[in-house]
Amino acid sequence: MKALHEHRVRVRYGETDQMGVVHHSNYLHYMEDGRTRLMEELGCSYAEIERRGFGLPVRRAELRFHSGARYDEELVVATRIGRLRAASIVFRYEIRRVAGELVARGEIELACVSLASPDRRPVALPDDLRGLLEGSAESDGAR
Amino acid sequence: MKALHEHRVRVRYGETDQMGVVHHSNYLHYMEDGRTRLMEELGCSYAEIERRGFGLPVRRAELRFHSGARYDEELVVATRIGRLRAASIVFRYEIRRVAGELVARGEIELACVSLASPDRRPVALPDDLRGLLEGSAESDGAR
Amino acid sequence: MKALHEHRVRVRYGETDQMGVVHHSNYLHYMEDGRTRLMEELGCSYAEIERRGFGLPVRRAELRFHSGARYDEELVVATRIGRLRAASIVFRYEIRRVAGELVARGEIELACVSLASPDRRPVALPDDLRGLLEGSAESDGAR
Amino acid sequence: MKALHEHRVRVRYGETDQMGVVHHSNYLHYMEDGRTRLMEELGCSYAEIERRGFGLPVRRAELRFHSGARYDEELVVATRIGRLRAASIVFRYEIRRVAGELVARGEIELACVSLASPDRRPVALPDDLRGLLEGSAESDGAR
Repeated sequence: MKALHEHRVRVRYGETDQMGVVHHSNYLHYMEDGRTRLMEELGCSYAEIERRGFGLPVRRAELRFHSGARYDEELVVATRIGRLRAASIVFRYEIRRVAGELVARGEIELACVSLASPDRRPVALPDDLRGLLEGSAESDGAR
Repeated sequence: MKALHEHRVRVRYGETDQMGVVHHSNYLHYMEDGRTRLMEELGCSYAEIERRGFGLPVRRAELRFHSGARYDEELVVATRIGRLRAASIVFRYEIRRVAGELVARGEIELACVSLASPDRRPVALPDDLRGLLEGSAESDGAR
Repeated sequence: MKALHEHRVRVRYGETDQMGVVHHSNYLHYMEDGRTRLMEELGCSYAEIERRGFGLPVRRAELRFHSGARYDEELVVATRIGRLRAASIVFRYEIRRVAGELVARGEIELACVSLASPDRRPVALPDDLRGLLEGSAESDGAR
Repeated sequence: MKALHEHRVRVRYGETDQMGVVHHSNYLHYMEDGRTRLMEELGCSYAEIERRGFGLPVRRAELRFHSGARYDEELVVATRIGRLRAASIVFRYEIRRVAGELVARGEIELACVSLASPDRRPVALPDDLRGLLEGSAESDGAR
């Protein structure tokens, strides 16, 4: 089973730039929202993960921009879990206008780290978190 | 003696909005830069204050916008310490174009809190910090 | 009749800072969302106002911060029209946790300008816009 | 000859997130600064390009994060022109601590579009812009 989470965002005025469209950096916030909500839905809220001492910083981001979204437009952010690795999670994104037109695509990899270690080296994903995410990943990756 | 710190910022593309000028929220970042550098110059870097367990969250901000700054313009951010209170510091700002035209004015009050307390109640400014700031304040405020 | 518009925002991860709470600059975005939606509800969407050649840049902002909102918290942004002036509109805000606790208050004044004029001098609010806003203002201000 | 532009940024407080490091979205602003300054140095300021009716929106971004930068750290942003295509420019980035440690790497592709066309289709880079950039590109790409 592939989990697919969709949430909607309205473009804020302060997210546009002088070209009249959303500044590209803001799509990273829309995608972050997407994984916050997907993880919550799967029963592993990110806020809770941090309280347990784990962090999931972004290690890699690949983004393609197809069409500039405009102020006050409503966008649909579709989030999937693309791959679970030993110490990282890959999320895949599609952002579309409500009418379906593609706005942006992205792939974001989060490393799992211990917030207690000063240099925040990667650690294995906790087993219960892996369990909750596993059934929803598109492919199971290297373990 | 009145301390006056000036630093220069170049407007980033991503700081503009579709009206073609700097989005007003970004002036708060320019002002935050100003007090970071003024405090460093006075020998009490804000990073060091946090390491000692104190935080200085913004309690109040009053901003007036006179002229919209544009992408790639260089601005001069002038920062002063306006007032020292028992548990807060008031900073005053003027942001101008290099040629002198006024862009924005602001007054920002920071409360001193203990980062260790969960509800972050105000605490008195540490004596050494007060000492370093005191000679530079425009008025001495209620103590 | 006093219009009161409420909308809800969820705090984004990227809106927090290292003090563990929402960076104060982001409340300006939450408030901007509030007036976007209130104006839309009153039949004068801000996007439409710009298409007609008028802009409403922020002229003045006064903010008080009472309690730091945290990642993933849901906040209620209550927006009112405080005062209509000849060439400006004052919005008043209260941001609370869903349970009622006050997070921030603000007052934001927007000037009405002509986007066609290079120096963007204030112009009178268009009559139809004034008409739509007027019944909802808390006080009628100087005309 | 390979152009390499370096500029320095100081991490702003509001650029950190609750993990205590720079939120990943902000590296896109640091990189944008890098290409603004490199292009200015090559004699083709981006502000001037827009005044002539061309825009260079971001079409693709690939980012790797190696180490989290902290508040008030000084970073060195090294910018190169990686490849010139018929209607796009690829910039390559390395962001390091002053002492040399790698913080992030990135590759950002900008499309050239006509700001006058409503759908902003790609157009060929203007000849003079191509001429100014060409000598500095690492490889000449498909023309």
